[in-house]
Amino acid sequence: MKKNVIAAQSGGPTVAINASLAGIVDAVIKSEAYDTVYGSVYGILGIINDNLINLNEQAAKIPNFIDTLKTSPAMYLGSCRYKLPDYEEDTASYDHIFNQFEKYNIGAFFYIGGNDSMDTVLKLSQYGKRIGSDIRIIGIPKTIDNDLCMTDHTPGYGSAAKYVASSILEIAHDTFIYSIQSVTIVEIMGRDAGWLTAASALARNSYNSAPHLIYFPEVAFDQEQFIQDVKEQLSKRNNVIIAVSEGIRDKNGNYISASTAANDQFGHSQLSGTGKSLEYMIRDSIHVKVRSIELNVLQRCAAHLASLTDLNESFSLGTHAVRYAKQGYTKCMLTLNRISNNPYSISIDTADIENIANEAKAIPREWIHEAGNDITPALHEYMAPLIAGEPSVSYKDGLPVYLPVTHLDRDSEN
Amino acid sequence: MKKNVIAAQSGGPTVAINASLAGIVDAVIKSEAYDTVYGSVYGILGIINDNLINLNEQAAKIPNFIDTLKTSPAMYLGSCRYKLPDYEEDTASYDHIFNQFEKYNIGAFFYIGGNDSMDTVLKLSQYGKRIGSDIRIIGIPKTIDNDLCMTDHTPGYGSAAKYVASSILEIAHDTFIYSIQSVTIVEIMGRDAGWLTAASALARNSYNSAPHLIYFPEVAFDQEQFIQDVKEQLSKRNNVIIAVSEGIRDKNGNYISASTAANDQFGHSQLSGTGKSLEYMIRDSIHVKVRSIELNVLQRCAAHLASLTDLNESFSLGTHAVRYAKQGYTKCMLTLNRISNNPYSISIDTADIENIANEAKAIPREWIHEAGNDITPALHEYMAPLIAGEPSVSYKDGLPVYLPVTHLDRDSEN
Repeated sequence: MKKNVIAAQSGGPTVAINASLAGIVDAVIKSEAYDTVYGSVYGILGIINDNLINLNEQAAKIPNFIDTLKTSPAMYLGSCRYKLPDYEEDTASYDHIFNQFEKYNIGAFFYIGGNDSMDTVLKLSQYGKRIGSDIRIIGIPKTIDNDLCMTDHTPGYGSAAKYVASSILEIAHDTFIYSIQSVTIVEIMGRDAGWLTAASALARNSYNSAPHLIYFPEVAFDQEQFIQDVKEQLSKRNNVIIAVSEGIRDKNGNYISASTAANDQFGHSQLSGTGKSLEYMIRDSIHVKVRSIELNVLQRCAAHLASLTDLNESFSLGTHAVRYAKQGYTKCMLTLNRISNNPYSISIDTADIENIANEAKAIPREWIHEAGNDITPALHEYMAPLIAGEPSVSYKDGLPVYLPVTHLDRDSEN
Repeated sequence: MKKNVIAAQSGGPTVAINASLAGIVDAVIKSEAYDTVYGSVYGILGIINDNLINLNEQAAKIPNFIDTLKTSPAMYLGSCRYKLPDYEEDTASYDHIFNQFEKYNIGAFFYIGGNDSMDTVLKLSQYGKRIGSDIRIIGIPKTIDNDLCMTDHTPGYGSAAKYVASSILEIAHDTFIYSIQSVTIVEIMGRDAGWLTAASALARNSYNSAPHLIYFPEVAFDQEQFIQDVKEQLSKRNNVIIAVSEGIRDKNGNYISASTAANDQFGHSQLSGTGKSLEYMIRDSIHVKVRSIELNVLQRCAAHLASLTDLNESFSLGTHAVRYAKQGYTKCMLTLNRISNNPYSISIDTADIENIANEAKAIPREWIHEAGNDITPALHEYMAPLIAGEPSVSYKDGLPVYLPVTHLDRDSEN
């Protein structure tokens, strides 16, 4: 009898995480080795709570399921932020999960997620080995932050990078129109690594030199130097645009966003955003029109502006996961390895999950300009191919057509 | 000898304002009546400061000029916020402008803009009449706020509405993934009218009921009622999404954004955004995960997500302006008049500028739900056709291809 598989999604949303799920579903349906692919609703919790859905049936029932899933944002299966206990202390949870695997005749479990999800892959792999299970446990990376080790880049990053670069370009157009001087600060996601903030530099082209300054979590932020940088830029041009990571810290490691804590009318201590903090620093030092913009969650869910390269790679990771499982690979995460930049080409390989879980990858210092406020050409070369290409997104009544989350009936009146 | 014309753009950016300019350029190039179309750089200031560019030459020189201009955000000619003095008190400015018209052999002046620009059209028309000038002075509307009188809707509104609705849908997908309860507040532009905030309702579809609450400047905001509304929604669903206009006011006419003014570490009084204010109100009253998102300037400059209906209408306004000028129309603004909703069709007519300048149009109260926190079906029917259709935007290196502002060399190092 052919075995079945389970797929689950975890962590924060990206635009590409459903593409990997679509790849798994596509590969299982075409597979000689596996029969049914179950989706675990709300990450690993779906297995624990016996909340599984049959994705073969969904693919048969919903028109263009694979293609629409590939371009739909966030998680079709829902997500969770759940960390498995240590199996030395609590074997019951693990026994329950492996009993569920047995009940559903599971041959492989695919977990699409970031660092925390890879921790789950590691623990399940180790426990499976201990009990002599031959179920393949495979991680598929995703995070807009691009901070996973052992992989050239992470699925979801390319699309978020494209959104950031396009937004900076459009914001630049918005600032170009007046003859008076202005400073615009754009706050970009990335608490510990500046990869996404660096992508703002991809907005530069033959007529646009913005962003003119970029600040990264990897480089200690110095307020005096910052004001000096802005003044120097204002001496050169009318409209200065600054890209800043939400995660910048001073030399003592304190987040800049926390340094301008204010009290509201109820006496609450409020944390201003990092962009707002920089806005206030400029207001306090320079007489110039200044505003700050937080790109916020749209950088991880604006699927209508996804990178086709990103979606295709994410889909391939899904199909490769099924293939690697069939070949016996387990206790691993799939990785993207860059073969060449020009033409851009990658291979999909595996890495031992022990080398990945709970580690984070920052931008190498040599890829950040010596002054700490810009990228180097090498980083530009690294990022540029990742945002290339546009998927074909369908529109209905003027809006992009996406697949709703599968369990949505709980959240909706409809 | 054939006469020339001048076109200028003024006020805040929209995605469609260049489409009207493209329409003017296209019509003049094909016209038997007019020779050259000059672009006035930085609005009316370009005429005053003798900063005109020959757009026929640009169209001949730049590949795909008309098509790329049609889909480029903000203003190709730059903008200004300049109000002409009263001509009873200062005739010199007016004499200078009309001397400039004479110097360039101008037969018509087209001003693309919002309320303030229409004030300029009114004053120039009146002064022209006084001195017996036969130069046609014609206004072409634009504003994302949709608050100009005498026209069914304004160019720029449909594209901004499409951006708002798409963003709400994508944010909804972002919130769907967790099983824990949350409230998400989305702040939308529109200081005096709620048209753009109302467009959030277009995000609703077969699976998405968000936004679940909508608050307008047209209805006095009551904090207690708001908290009650949110609690009621939370009793029905996990993820509550709220759309709020930046311009909501309490029953005394005070902006809600000002009511939570806080002091930062430098002792500055800060104005929180409206969304932030609502976020704090909820934090103070309900134990639930809450966040606020400000759509900010992207709603007026994200041209890659424009409404084709909007761009086509804006382009037609440009071509019609040239035609109406030739027919002798002056002292008027072009208007869009809805002939039918299904199929959607409009005519382009003119209205006396005296009935338009300095007036603002709010949403009729009967188009807002009695409870003041949602729209009615009639408003939905009014908005829906305006966001329809997607323009063909070119991409290069993963980013949309736009035309830079024509005077950009001043602002750039390149």
